[in-house]
Amino acid sequence: MANLTLDTVLNGIEPADQAWEEKAKARVEALAVPPWSLGRLSHLGVRLAGMQRTIHPDVTRKMIITCGADEGVAEEGVSAFPQEVTQEMLRNIACGGASINVLAKAAGAQVRLVDCGVKGDFPELIEKGVLVDKKVAYGSQNMRKGPAMTKAQAVASLEGGIAVAADAIENEGIQLLGTGDLGIGNTTPSAAILAVIGHHSVEDATGRGTGLDDAGLANKIQVIKDAIALNQPDPSDGLDVLAKVGGFDIGGIAGTILGAAYHRTPILIDGFISTAGALIAKTLCPTAADYMIAAHKSQEPGHTLMWQTLGQKPILDLDMRLGEGTGAAVAMHIVECAARTMNDILTFEEAAVTNKN
Amino acid sequence: MANLTLDTVLNGIEPADQAWEEKAKARVEALAVPPWSLGRLSHLGVRLAGMQRTIHPDVTRKMIITCGADEGVAEEGVSAFPQEVTQEMLRNIACGGASINVLAKAAGAQVRLVDCGVKGDFPELIEKGVLVDKKVAYGSQNMRKGPAMTKAQAVASLEGGIAVAADAIENEGIQLLGTGDLGIGNTTPSAAILAVIGHHSVEDATGRGTGLDDAGLANKIQVIKDAIALNQPDPSDGLDVLAKVGGFDIGGIAGTILGAAYHRTPILIDGFISTAGALIAKTLCPTAADYMIAAHKSQEPGHTLMWQTLGQKPILDLDMRLGEGTGAAVAMHIVECAARTMNDILTFEEAAVTNKN
Repeated sequence: MANLTLDTVLNGIEPADQAWEEKAKARVEALAVPPWSLGRLSHLGVRLAGMQRTIHPDVTRKMIITCGADEGVAEEGVSAFPQEVTQEMLRNIACGGASINVLAKAAGAQVRLVDCGVKGDFPELIEKGVLVDKKVAYGSQNMRKGPAMTKAQAVASLEGGIAVAADAIENEGIQLLGTGDLGIGNTTPSAAILAVIGHHSVEDATGRGTGLDDAGLANKIQVIKDAIALNQPDPSDGLDVLAKVGGFDIGGIAGTILGAAYHRTPILIDGFISTAGALIAKTLCPTAADYMIAAHKSQEPGHTLMWQTLGQKPILDLDMRLGEGTGAAVAMHIVECAARTMNDILTFEEAAVTNKN
Repeated sequence: MANLTLDTVLNGIEPADQAWEEKAKARVEALAVPPWSLGRLSHLGVRLAGMQRTIHPDVTRKMIITCGADEGVAEEGVSAFPQEVTQEMLRNIACGGASINVLAKAAGAQVRLVDCGVKGDFPELIEKGVLVDKKVAYGSQNMRKGPAMTKAQAVASLEGGIAVAADAIENEGIQLLGTGDLGIGNTTPSAAILAVIGHHSVEDATGRGTGLDDAGLANKIQVIKDAIALNQPDPSDGLDVLAKVGGFDIGGIAGTILGAAYHRTPILIDGFISTAGALIAKTLCPTAADYMIAAHKSQEPGHTLMWQTLGQKPILDLDMRLGEGTGAAVAMHIVECAARTMNDILTFEEAAVTNKN
């Protein structure tokens, strides 16, 4: 099929179905357990029912989509690691030995690694089928000196993510997605997005990323303040925010989320960078939030503010701060448990029949 | 082998091995990730290493042990459900259609259902191999009128749990256990144990269980106060507390925990009743706590006090309050993820070699 355009997707996302949610609630209340004693598993089961339009949701086929890119702002010294590490991490995931490979395997999920804008070429990885090429450019521009990307590039990064999600759902039957990120310096645009869209101070929105010291943190805060002051992103315009203070990885993640929502597919939102993508996606299309599931609360302090802004409570709180989609991968089991409680636990009526036989 | 006596187990439990924990920490710090960015997964991985004496812990073979019993105090109207429901729940689990069956299956774990003292006979379930007979008596005595059981019965319930855990570990190679409970009225002895061992007021220790109203809660609090005043359990003597204000299910759970600790096997502690068993186990042998992993925080308010008393932070907080071992079953995946992070994520050194090839 032809690739979906951003406009088609934004106009085609439908809310989760409340009638199916009501049917699912009735089943929860008929289960042979004290009322709602499965807690958040049942609430999540009801949400899945509304997304998938069935009281028997199925999330067996799972995939983490990890979007990688380089950030122009990395030249401002905002990360504890040099920019070359982006490529090392990308190769590490492509080889299957990274954290996301291990945790996705534990969840029974595939990993789809996407180059949204890394500074380098990887023909051998694309050839081997372990990397999807959605590269918009060789890294974004330094947002302290101007917009991180053009509007056209922002659209391209979103449509790249949409295409990867659509392919997974339409052609591979994926029923549960998870987001992931990869890119040295990418907590900096993420914090900028949080400050702008969530109307928080840059100080509240900004953390130490992979391990900045006090001076590094102060510099990072100043860089973000300068970038916002220079570019003046419009908080109500997700495309404007993405283009001015975002990154290609964040655009890819936002597109993945929009593509999932368009296809009525639940998507677990991972850590700080992924949730910045979720903020962009929700600003572009508030209804997309119906398909988002908050995977975990990371150690990055601004992540709590992001979940507040999105009005979601994360499933897990394990002090993780690794990215790549690792928190989403760990949370997939909980979502699978939620689906199974809707499918396999007997109602009082069913249990009485079974016990008689 | 001969059945283990309580004395043998209490004298034979050895602490987790700090030298192996140190080796595991060194591996965590060599992984190709920002330091400790896997958060609690790595801390849990280190604990597993100390328990199992290896930097490559293995929790592939898993089992939930669900201990059922009736409580004499149920005749005081402390539960929203009639006592016959214990037997219905037991049959429901034996048939495979209960919540614990579904969530254990999702975790890749077996369920071992144990009759520690249910008011009824189940020869056909024992014959079919879906119920283990460790019945001490047909329910405990009403603790408002005297001790819930004799000291000899308390020892028998503990040794029953020890035997079930030992059999699973020695004969079936189980590497990760989870506790579970089953029994109408069993939050009442659990709250009594918390109040006595944790030195909390009965009001703070007591909740609504499966759904008491205000009058029911007030009655339950008075029943527990009367039982403690009459029996005068000694908070420093776990056997005395179990005998005077406990139950056979709680004794079985405490025995399961002690048996796991004796065999250096990690054991996930489930909800309010299971954690009452953990309080008994720790009072009998403080070192046993080295092998306990706090699975989740239940909705029963006193559960938070129990974890504080045990000095543990639960893995999950999903508002569950179902029992049977359901919280332990859901948490098993997180423990498995922790083990896999110790085994399958490459170090910087290993990743460099892999990327070169």
